[in-house]
Amino acid sequence: MMDKKLLDLKKEVYFANKRLVEEDLVIFTFGNVSGIDRQQGIIAIKPSGVDYDKISWQDIVLVSLEGQVIDSSLKPSSDTKTHLKLYREFPLIGGVAHTHSRYASSFAQAKLSVKCLGTTHADYFYGEIPCTELISDKAIEQDYEEETGILIVDTFNTTKLDYMQIKACLVAGHGPFTWGSNADDAGYMSKVLEEIARQNFLTQLLNPDVEPLKKTLQNKHYFRKHGKDAYYGQDHQD
Amino acid sequence: MMDKKLLDLKKEVYFANKRLVEEDLVIFTFGNVSGIDRQQGIIAIKPSGVDYDKISWQDIVLVSLEGQVIDSSLKPSSDTKTHLKLYREFPLIGGVAHTHSRYASSFAQAKLSVKCLGTTHADYFYGEIPCTELISDKAIEQDYEEETGILIVDTFNTTKLDYMQIKACLVAGHGPFTWGSNADDAGYMSKVLEEIARQNFLTQLLNPDVEPLKKTLQNKHYFRKHGKDAYYGQDHQD
Amino acid sequence: MMDKKLLDLKKEVYFANKRLVEEDLVIFTFGNVSGIDRQQGIIAIKPSGVDYDKISWQDIVLVSLEGQVIDSSLKPSSDTKTHLKLYREFPLIGGVAHTHSRYASSFAQAKLSVKCLGTTHADYFYGEIPCTELISDKAIEQDYEEETGILIVDTFNTTKLDYMQIKACLVAGHGPFTWGSNADDAGYMSKVLEEIARQNFLTQLLNPDVEPLKKTLQNKHYFRKHGKDAYYGQDHQD
Amino acid sequence: MMDKKLLDLKKEVYFANKRLVEEDLVIFTFGNVSGIDRQQGIIAIKPSGVDYDKISWQDIVLVSLEGQVIDSSLKPSSDTKTHLKLYREFPLIGGVAHTHSRYASSFAQAKLSVKCLGTTHADYFYGEIPCTELISDKAIEQDYEEETGILIVDTFNTTKLDYMQIKACLVAGHGPFTWGSNADDAGYMSKVLEEIARQNFLTQLLNPDVEPLKKTLQNKHYFRKHGKDAYYGQDHQD
Repeated sequence: MMDKKLLDLKKEVYFANKRLVEEDLVIFTFGNVSGIDRQQGIIAIKPSGVDYDKISWQDIVLVSLEGQVIDSSLKPSSDTKTHLKLYREFPLIGGVAHTHSRYASSFAQAKLSVKCLGTTHADYFYGEIPCTELISDKAIEQDYEEETGILIVDTFNTTKLDYMQIKACLVAGHGPFTWGSNADDAGYMSKVLEEIARQNFLTQLLNPDVEPLKKTLQNKHYFRKHGKDAYYGQDHQD
Repeated sequence: MMDKKLLDLKKEVYFANKRLVEEDLVIFTFGNVSGIDRQQGIIAIKPSGVDYDKISWQDIVLVSLEGQVIDSSLKPSSDTKTHLKLYREFPLIGGVAHTHSRYASSFAQAKLSVKCLGTTHADYFYGEIPCTELISDKAIEQDYEEETGILIVDTFNTTKLDYMQIKACLVAGHGPFTWGSNADDAGYMSKVLEEIARQNFLTQLLNPDVEPLKKTLQNKHYFRKHGKDAYYGQDHQD
Repeated sequence: MMDKKLLDLKKEVYFANKRLVEEDLVIFTFGNVSGIDRQQGIIAIKPSGVDYDKISWQDIVLVSLEGQVIDSSLKPSSDTKTHLKLYREFPLIGGVAHTHSRYASSFAQAKLSVKCLGTTHADYFYGEIPCTELISDKAIEQDYEEETGILIVDTFNTTKLDYMQIKACLVAGHGPFTWGSNADDAGYMSKVLEEIARQNFLTQLLNPDVEPLKKTLQNKHYFRKHGKDAYYGQDHQD
Repeated sequence: MMDKKLLDLKKEVYFANKRLVEEDLVIFTFGNVSGIDRQQGIIAIKPSGVDYDKISWQDIVLVSLEGQVIDSSLKPSSDTKTHLKLYREFPLIGGVAHTHSRYASSFAQAKLSVKCLGTTHADYFYGEIPCTELISDKAIEQDYEEETGILIVDTFNTTKLDYMQIKACLVAGHGPFTWGSNADDAGYMSKVLEEIARQNFLTQLLNPDVEPLKKTLQNKHYFRKHGKDAYYGQDHQD
């Protein structure tokens, strides 16, 4: 009989995937969310190209961190190797989401990062959300999905960004990946990213010369919600 | 008594038409979807200008490939001849949809093709979605709806596009036509086209100099979902 | 006891007003729709500034063509005199609608007419939808709402437009008025206008140099739906 | 036992906060609304960072005008001091709302006021809705949320705007604050502001050279709804 924790993980991943549609982040079966059990080194991820109306949470696929399908007759998402790469390289994350949401994907297609233009952004992301380089032909030929994960990780390493302070990356010509403490939180970050990208888009149309928010104000908003001096929400001591 | 297959076709076409409204691709009675029974050479199509609340699936009109109304007291869609032309010239298709969806129609009005700017596009269409020339005055006078179909077919022939790899065409100054394996699939392609046109629009506003996605990346995404080496979804062998 | 026809008119006007909100053409109590009983020379119109949740169809106000309130303790819409002017000058119309819908109002604020850029427009309006001049200070001081009606009528007279072929006008700096055969039809035209204005907006952003649709194609689409040679819909003979 | 008036205030504030989400002005728990009991000098405000599905109206936090939490184990919104400042300086207001609504926030991020371009604006706000200066580093360090309130008040004082005629202010790089006669009315103004900002945005894209609405027309629309000569709505004498 399957581990209770893995069953719960499947359920959580199932609902996080459905939520992408409910939140209008994807149409049809575009996009995918996964979650991980770090102790067992097993992730749960959406099956590839299936209709949500035709599957139940039991159909969520379990895959080992090395890419072995554990329990399912269904194939996991074609983007599974990208997720696995992120879990292996970003050891503190518990969930990954990939969407084709309109505004974030448009920034990715335009090959532009999402600059921090306001406090809504600063409340969630500490600095601009990077866009990768366009993937190389060699990487496409070799192991495309794994290489997409490598591209994201390299983008963070090269620019010395902290993946726990900026839980999102745009893959050039493709779309956004986000992550968080678990599957639901990863999906939540996708929604926040989309809203921020949308306001960024509108702001640039209103004022093409707009400058990024000054660092002192970014600091104020980010750190009133994150870290040891946070005072937003109910979980902190004043 | 009517053939069971034709009754089923009527139902499928009825629901595919209603779905255009539910998916926010048309308002009121704009747009139309049809499906075909290739063996009998009969199509089922929406009656012209009727309110969905006032008809049932039985009211869907059957028309022969030559344009003869078979079973109905209602007149078929005024665009029927366009559909018939596509069925006759594109023998592998099983459904046709025509909408006035916002973004795709705006590209058609702007007389612009929808260039492939990202993998969302490449997942569904192999290359840019063409926009026809503006229909000639002679064609308007002669047999407008039939000529609209000819215009689409000519656009594909002249540019040597494969109608099975690009299941959509914008008619200049008018709007999009899409097709697929059946009525529902044709409507599905209308929804995908609209989403892609919308992201294309946003991308161009963000970066007017954006280049089409490089061919290697287009190939990767299109062929991981289509053809003999596909590995997306559940129907392929790895 | 009140005339059955007037009671029915009240109901129709009540639902046409509610529909403005349901169709997302107005927020809150913005906008107003009226309908007329031509035989009795009486219009029914929304009370001024009331919440739809707090009124019933009985609260719709009856007003004579000369502006006399007939049956209500509630004041009619502050725009009543504009409606009355249109009914007196446009004898063939049976309903008037005024909204603050986003795209149509934005054209009015930009003081731009809505040019015919595609067949969606040509299916409903025969040529561009005019925008009035900005109302004069004298007209504002004198009898603002009546003068707004005069402005619309003058716009049609000066440019020799046929109010039965173009059932809409943008009032500069203000918003759209539409009309039709009855209250419901007037509201319907508001929805169509908003959709067309939206596509027009998108088209101009995609292609600032776009030309109006050629007249031959406008004629084809308009007259396949209107007039003696119409063949769209179920009410015409082929 | 708690004062009946304060219980009612909590309820009103609870529903006004939920309405921000229902009206699509905020996603998740972004934004906050408060209301005040002027006699007792007590405000009711949303707890900081909580999920609406997990709280009831009883969880709304009561805070004295001096900032003392009165009855709750939950921490009040992190923006509470901004609200309190507004209540102390604007003695005629009964509610305050803060959102991150798309268009209003984009104007704030672009550091642009919302100019009056049409009668929809003039119906609600007498003149342009100001955007503050960017908050100083000193103010950020000192007492950020209180200083945000000071910034708003200073903006109105410096430009001699009447806070009862313009019930909204954009905080540069941040987002909108609105106010009204009570919590619900403050949220209502947030919705109106968002709609007006959206139409303003569209208008500027259509016509970048658009001029503000002439003062005579602004006067007409504002004063037909406000003040002693108002004749819009049911509460005035003609």
